[in-house]
Amino acid sequence: MIGINERDKAVFEAGIKLGALYHQFVGTPISMETADALERTIEDSIALQPHVRSVSVSIDREMVMKKLNPNFNYCELDGRMLHVTLQIIYKSTIAQAELAYDEEKDYPLMSIKKIEEM
Amino acid sequence: MIGINERDKAVFEAGIKLGALYHQFVGTPISMETADALERTIEDSIALQPHVRSVSVSIDREMVMKKLNPNFNYCELDGRMLHVTLQIIYKSTIAQAELAYDEEKDYPLMSIKKIEEM
Amino acid sequence: MIGINERDKAVFEAGIKLGALYHQFVGTPISMETADALERTIEDSIALQPHVRSVSVSIDREMVMKKLNPNFNYCELDGRMLHVTLQIIYKSTIAQAELAYDEEKDYPLMSIKKIEEM
Amino acid sequence: MIGINERDKAVFEAGIKLGALYHQFVGTPISMETADALERTIEDSIALQPHVRSVSVSIDREMVMKKLNPNFNYCELDGRMLHVTLQIIYKSTIAQAELAYDEEKDYPLMSIKKIEEM
Repeated sequence: MIGINERDKAVFEAGIKLGALYHQFVGTPISMETADALERTIEDSIALQPHVRSVSVSIDREMVMKKLNPNFNYCELDGRMLHVTLQIIYKSTIAQAELAYDEEKDYPLMSIKKIEEM
Repeated sequence: MIGINERDKAVFEAGIKLGALYHQFVGTPISMETADALERTIEDSIALQPHVRSVSVSIDREMVMKKLNPNFNYCELDGRMLHVTLQIIYKSTIAQAELAYDEEKDYPLMSIKKIEEM
Repeated sequence: MIGINERDKAVFEAGIKLGALYHQFVGTPISMETADALERTIEDSIALQPHVRSVSVSIDREMVMKKLNPNFNYCELDGRMLHVTLQIIYKSTIAQAELAYDEEKDYPLMSIKKIEEM
Repeated sequence: MIGINERDKAVFEAGIKLGALYHQFVGTPISMETADALERTIEDSIALQPHVRSVSVSIDREMVMKKLNPNFNYCELDGRMLHVTLQIIYKSTIAQAELAYDEEKDYPLMSIKKIEEM
């Protein structure tokens, strides 16, 4: 067994935020007109959570366009549409994580990208 | 048995929208600073759905204040915080519905308020 | 303006339940092995809500199969997979509503099917 | 900068699962009668996700009892009701994490408890 350190906590918090964001907002009705504001709302809500240093959300407009229902002109936010980069700061450790659609695996993949000591 | 009419459809759609909105957004992290933008995001997402004529969302700031976690300065959107008025238009029928906290029952109550022929 | 009656309330409640169910459970991880139990859980949670007389949920196994990620052997519950029939009883009025995938519109359509006086 | 290792990945995955679970299921209607089955459903859905070795969910019955609406005899699943223990296995590293209500902070706290090499 190994003691839990700052790095572990930073990385763990990064995972929490991506999991939370995904399952909170997937299913939200969205159109080309509302995508911008929805990106900001997701960012602002996640930024409230503990240890978030920064978060950037972008919704794939091409996928939104493809999924728009022709009768109703909107669709639902799908996890595959989300591209998120976030930084967690835990004491002096910064962990950067990402949610990005992996085309090959056809999967919205979350990954830890970088860990730094300040 | 009785045939389904325009009025039934308008009222039914009103129910759908309130149920959807509630269960999509409850749990979202919120603070005094993000409440405004979250209200607009909820309105804009529900306005995309079929037959919505108008929707107005207001989040009870006093309840947000009370629920703010003192360590983290945010809380989660609770159904009791939501006050929503929406109008559905189905052909020539307008149904107005509301979600409002009923203090006596301690329950976020959804109700149909008015039905009009245009 | 027209006064709200029992029939309106029954129909409105039916809408609420379908909207709620949809946005609460869409996004849940699911596989062929867990579909049965998830159907029961959705039914049981919606049956708790006021005025529900009965609710039956079935998840389209063919769609689950098609959406299963080959690397991970699960997918997310999609609104298109849901077939729901529910009955609301409000005083002596029974309203029956349905959520079913409409292939032509490629849309998970909610509709009110029948209204009866007991 | 420091390269990402197995341990980081195990810990990150643990965070993802807890964040996901929380925001997927919070808001679900629950009663004393449905709590058992809901625990199993949450466990089974999270167990489907990549790298989950085990997951155990228990819902605080006392809190459910206290929150039950006396008019309707159910309440909504609140994050404070959840006690979750989960193990992630990433290659030969096992990370154990927990979600538990922290009374002092009045906060549903997620924490990483143990990291082991097999």
